[in-house]
Parts: sequence; structure tokens; C-alpha cells
Amino acid sequence: MTDNTADDPVQLLKNLIACPSVTPTEAGALDVLEAALNAIGFAVTRLTFEGDGSYPVDNLFAIRGNVGRRLLFAGHTDVVPPGDLAHWTTDPFTPRQADGKLYGRGAADMKSGIAAFVAAAAAIPLEAGTIMLAITNDEEADAINGTAKLMAWAQAQQHHFDFAIVGEPSSTANLGDSIKIGRRGSLSGVITVAGTQGHVAYPDRANNPMPALARVVTALDTTIDTGTAHFPPSNLEVTSIDVGNVISNVIPASGTIRFNIRYNDLWTPDTLADWVRSRMASVDAAGSTITFALAGEPSRSFLSPLSDDVETLAATIADLTGQRPGFSTGGGTSDARFIAQYGPVVECGLVGPSMHKADEHIALSDLAGLTEIYRAFMLRFFGAVS
Amino acid sequence: MTDNTADDPVQLLKNLIACPSVTPTEAGALDVLEAALNAIGFAVTRLTFEGDGSYPVDNLFAIRGNVGRRLLFAGHTDVVPPGDLAHWTTDPFTPRQADGKLYGRGAADMKSGIAAFVAAAAAIPLEAGTIMLAITNDEEADAINGTAKLMAWAQAQQHHFDFAIVGEPSSTANLGDSIKIGRRGSLSGVITVAGTQGHVAYPDRANNPMPALARVVTALDTTIDTGTAHFPPSNLEVTSIDVGNVISNVIPASGTIRFNIRYNDLWTPDTLADWVRSRMASVDAAGSTITFALAGEPSRSFLSPLSDDVETLAATIADLTGQRPGFSTGGGTSDARFIAQYGPVVECGLVGPSMHKADEHIALSDLAGLTEIYRAFMLRFFGAVS
Repeated sequence: MTDNTADDPVQLLKNLIACPSVTPTEAGALDVLEAALNAIGFAVTRLTFEGDGSYPVDNLFAIRGNVGRRLLFAGHTDVVPPGDLAHWTTDPFTPRQADGKLYGRGAADMKSGIAAFVAAAAAIPLEAGTIMLAITNDEEADAINGTAKLMAWAQAQQHHFDFAIVGEPSSTANLGDSIKIGRRGSLSGVITVAGTQGHVAYPDRANNPMPALARVVTALDTTIDTGTAHFPPSNLEVTSIDVGNVISNVIPASGTIRFNIRYNDLWTPDTLADWVRSRMASVDAAGSTITFALAGEPSRSFLSPLSDDVETLAATIADLTGQRPGFSTGGGTSDARFIAQYGPVVECGLVGPSMHKADEHIALSDLAGLTEIYRAFMLRFFGAVS
Repeated sequence: MTDNTADDPVQLLKNLIACPSVTPTEAGALDVLEAALNAIGFAVTRLTFEGDGSYPVDNLFAIRGNVGRRLLFAGHTDVVPPGDLAHWTTDPFTPRQADGKLYGRGAADMKSGIAAFVAAAAAIPLEAGTIMLAITNDEEADAINGTAKLMAWAQAQQHHFDFAIVGEPSSTANLGDSIKIGRRGSLSGVITVAGTQGHVAYPDRANNPMPALARVVTALDTTIDTGTAHFPPSNLEVTSIDVGNVISNVIPASGTIRFNIRYNDLWTPDTLADWVRSRMASVDAAGSTITFALAGEPSRSFLSPLSDDVETLAATIADLTGQRPGFSTGGGTSDARFIAQYGPVVECGLVGPSMHKADEHIALSDLAGLTEIYRAFMLRFFGAVS
């Protein structure tokens, strides 16, 4: 090895934390990663994507080998801002090792996952199979010029994969106690209910849209589905209703309903938008005009099949930790939703309770443990051991 | 007469318009009025009321005579701001006589009503009866230190009245085609629906108040009553619903419903507030807390009895115009609501379509006609003619 960080996850993690890579500025983090990957035989491509109403983002794709089965590891070097520095014991971008822990912004989410995977890959024989990494510097914010475009580019380059692991913190209390095999989707929308403005003293010359607006809210407050094998029922929450009329004698012209739906694998954004429209159509509009628009880009739901590869990962974790992981689909969204469009993907990483908080940290023993999980899984995945 | 304005309504109106008495600044308008009233034998008291969360306001009370029946005339010298001066042909506070019309801010609402009444009173024999004027300079804005306090003061001074006329523009198309014998009340309120904030991905850890809020709006969207002999049904309009949550993944903590009720003579503010609370109580709150508060001071509804005096006024108008006036209770609120607490009151004045607009004006023939209506009515009211 010409670079000793690639096979030392602690040193690589320290080097990554030292780069203040708050979204979307990579701040050298991708350079650190590129050097480590080059040192263990990866061909690295750096890609800047831009446009579509968002800022430019630096991304990295790496590949080693062109034989055997094909494994993709995905993750992000960007971190959320440190917040109030007064809440940190020391500088968030100066890695601090103490009491068996490593502190710093990104220690848990998710520079540690990257460091563990690179160190694990360093221990895999070159001829075992094909290993790829898709790393973005924008998972925490817009995610428009990040993993979505990186995966589309990789697809166009024929960099297909048999199985993908996202290194996000997926464990809840102990390393390996949970892996995520899917995620709910998220769809946000705005419904506008428009009537005719007027004076409250002359309601027959106006058409108040507020009663119809209330009926739309009530129509949305219903069962969407009853859940699936691995997902809870889809759920809609009205997040805001706004009119902004401060004049007490004026009947308002219109009002808006904002909502978010977290939905399971029964739905796509299109079928769910149709469901919203059908709920709107069920309402007595009483002369008001009710219109619907998406707010932002919906996140698709996904569920990876419970394949032999998932079973191999679960068995590897059970062998190493003594505990078989639960299969979860909980929590918010992650970049795994972009990867799921191209192949099976799971999320498997560290314990994440300190993520996004001050004094973010991981246990060094967990970092070593995750490195070993990745390494042992790859050996089995590539057929080096059965 | 030592002052020739008192019996010349056109000159008095011009002198009043020349005072830019935008609420609450009387700008000399009450001085003009005091001089005119003094000239025809009135004792004038100037009263400044202040406090109760509003600005100080100048008011005027005048009385002439202490025998016979007692008539009160009420009105206001304050005017709304002129708005964009570019929309006015000439300066709004320089009276302009042209084409048989008089232009200027306050020409219709309601310096003309005052000028007509003063000129009419000048023609009434001193011994006919007792004439009083209660004039405020704050009808167009807060109305807290205006007619309400002026009437309370007059009551304390034993200045009771048998009948009152408010000189607001009450006619719709032709002079005298309508007098107002009552007004609806107005009550504004705010209902707050509070739940528990949380993340949309974890709705079981929150309690979204939006569905309960929608149910409250629906519960308010109902029949209050079916109207009375002289009033339409009471009516509630929701004027705003506001949450102000811009974060699409946050379940909001609370939302507010603002509403206004225009109500008839079946209700008082207290009984109507009870009705609102009963509607709130009919809703499944689903764990939310629903609270109600008044927004501002409610205006009471009133209906003056169809007495001999009302009949005398109607007959006088019919004799002079050839058309018997309609008895209306329509429109917004006026200071008559404060007077109605002490005795019977009607509103009888000019045609008002230009009020509050640029190039506000009245027809000089209408000013003369209204002066004659007031004069002829007073002669009959005081028994000078039958």
C-alpha cells in the first residue's frame, strides 16, 4: 500500500472529518477519498452535475475490476452544518478521539460508513469481483445534482450492479441490529381552493372558499391503505393551511392546503397524485375551484426483494454480532430511493443517534465492526467463502 | 343671523370640506360647526375622550331648548383618507362646485348630512322643542373614543332623547328612497385549534390539529337562524385560516380560524358567543384543544320600533319626494348602534355611491332636498304642524 489510509478506517475517517464538507461544498473530502481509492486499485471519475434549479454538486464514481458479481456501495461525503459551535466540546471539523469514540461532524452520518467500506474493500482480492462506489456531496439538501444524476450516468456507462449497499446509519441501538430493506416514499402537495372575494356584509355577492377548503381537508383525513408486508399504512398529514387575510370584513378569494404523504410500496407518485385528485373530486366544491400541484419532487417508495444477497448480509451480521438484524422500512427518505430504480439496495451502517447533533460521534469499536461486516459480506457475496 | 353659514347648507358644507379632518384629526371642522351652532342659539360642549387602547378623539355635543319633545341628530366630521391624489380631479379638501354638484372628501359621508341638519335647525322656532347634536370625529376608524363615549356622557348629563336621526347616507338611488331602521350586528372571533407538533414520518408521536380544525370550519358552516321580520338570516363567514408552517415535513402545532358574523335582532354578542362555543363543542376534537376569543369589540344589532315618529319621517319624505322610503336594515355597521342603546334611532341621509371614493360628491339639489326633509320632519315631530 502506498497510502496507508485506505486500509485504516480510523485514519481515513479522521481525514474525511477534517474536510468541512457542508452541503454542497466538498471541501477536499472527495480528494481524500479519491486518493484512498486510487491507492487500492480503483479507477475514479469525478463528476460535477448542475442545473434543474439547484446548485452545482461534486460527485465521485469509482470502480475496481470487471469480472464476477457486481457490488455497488453508495453514500455521501456532505454533512449538515454544525449549528451553534457553543454546543460542541471542540471544533466539529477537527476529529477528536477520546474514550473509545471519534467525534466530529459527519462521524456518524456518514463518513464512517465510507471509511469502513473503503477499508473493507482494501482487504478484498482484486479478482474476487467488481466493486463500485457512488458518492455524492449532496444528500443532506436538494439531492437534485447528486445520487439521482450519478446513478443515471452510471447506468448510461453500463455500470450495472447485482446488489447495492447504502452506508447510512441504519442501526438503532447496537451495530447491525437493523438494516433497511426499503423506504417509504414522500410526496408533498399544495391544494388551492379559490372562490370569489367580497365583503362579509354581502355574502351573496361573493363565494367563500373556506367551507370547501375544510371539506377537502376532511376528505384527505382518511385511510389511504392498510399497509403491506413490510410497510405501515400510507399516511397523509396536512402540514399547513393558509389564507393570510387580516381584514376581518373581507371574504377571502382563496386558501391553500399543504400536505405530505409518506407512502408504502403500493403506490407511485403518479398513482398517489391520482388518489389525491379523487379525494378532491369527492368534495362538494360549492362553486369553488380546487386545484392540485406537487410541491417539490416526490420521493419514490421502494422495497428490495428478500433475496439470497439480503439473507447473506443478515447471516454475516448474525455471525459477527450474535444478533440477526431486523428488516426495517422506517424513518425518513434516503438516497437509496434513487438507487432502487436500478437494482436491489439495502441500507446497512452504524448506530445513528448522534447524527445531525452537536458532538456527533461513533464508537471506534463499531467502526471496526462495520468494516468487518462489509469485508465478510463481500467475501461471501463474491463467492470467496460460502 | 351673525353667521350666515348656519342657514346656508352649501356654504357650511364647503367650510367643513375645507378642513382635512381625516380620522382622528378634526382639523378645524368642529370649530366651524361650533361657530355655526352658536350662531343659531345652540350651547356647545367640546369633549375629548381618550384611552381604552385608542387615540384621543375630539367630539362635540350641542343643545338648544329645554322644552317639548327631544330630537337628537348624530353624525361625524371625520373622513377617510383621500387615497391616491392622482385619482382626484382637484384637491380633495378644496370644495369644488361644478355641474350642480359639490366635490370634496366628506361631501357625501357625511359633512353634507351635518350641513343639511344645521341649516334645517336654523329654520325651526326656538320654542318648538329641544334639538341636540352629537358629533364625533371618529366614526371611520376605531370608534372607541367617539359616539359610544359621547352618548354615555350625554346620558349621564340627562340629555335623553325621544327620537334620533343619524345623518349617514342612507339613500340608495334617489334621495329619500330608503331609511335605515336597524342594523345587523357584527362579531369577529378567532378559534385556535392546538395539537402536538411532530415529524410527518412519525405521526403517532404527534397529534395533527388540522383535521379537527377542518371539522370546526364545517361546524360553523351552518344555518344560524332563518331571519326576522326586518332582517335577513344571520350569517357567518370564515375570513382566514392560518398555520404558517413552511416546513413540509413538520406536523404543525396549531392553526387559527378567523371569522365574522353579521347577525340580526335575535342575538346579542353574548348569546352569539355561546352559539359559537356550542358549535365548537359539537366537533370531535380528537385530542386537540379548541379555544375561542373575540377579535375586537362586537357591534350590537339593533332594530328601532316602527313608531309614530318613524311613520312621520316616512310620510314627510313621501310628501316631499313623491316616494315613500323603504325601511332597510342592510349594509355594514354605523354609529347608530351606540345610540340605539339609549332610544329609537333611524338613519336618514343622502345618496352615498361616491362615499370613500375619489371625486366624492353630492348633488346640490339633494343637499337642498335633505335640508327640507329634516326641516319639514322637525316641524311635524315638534307638533308645529300636524
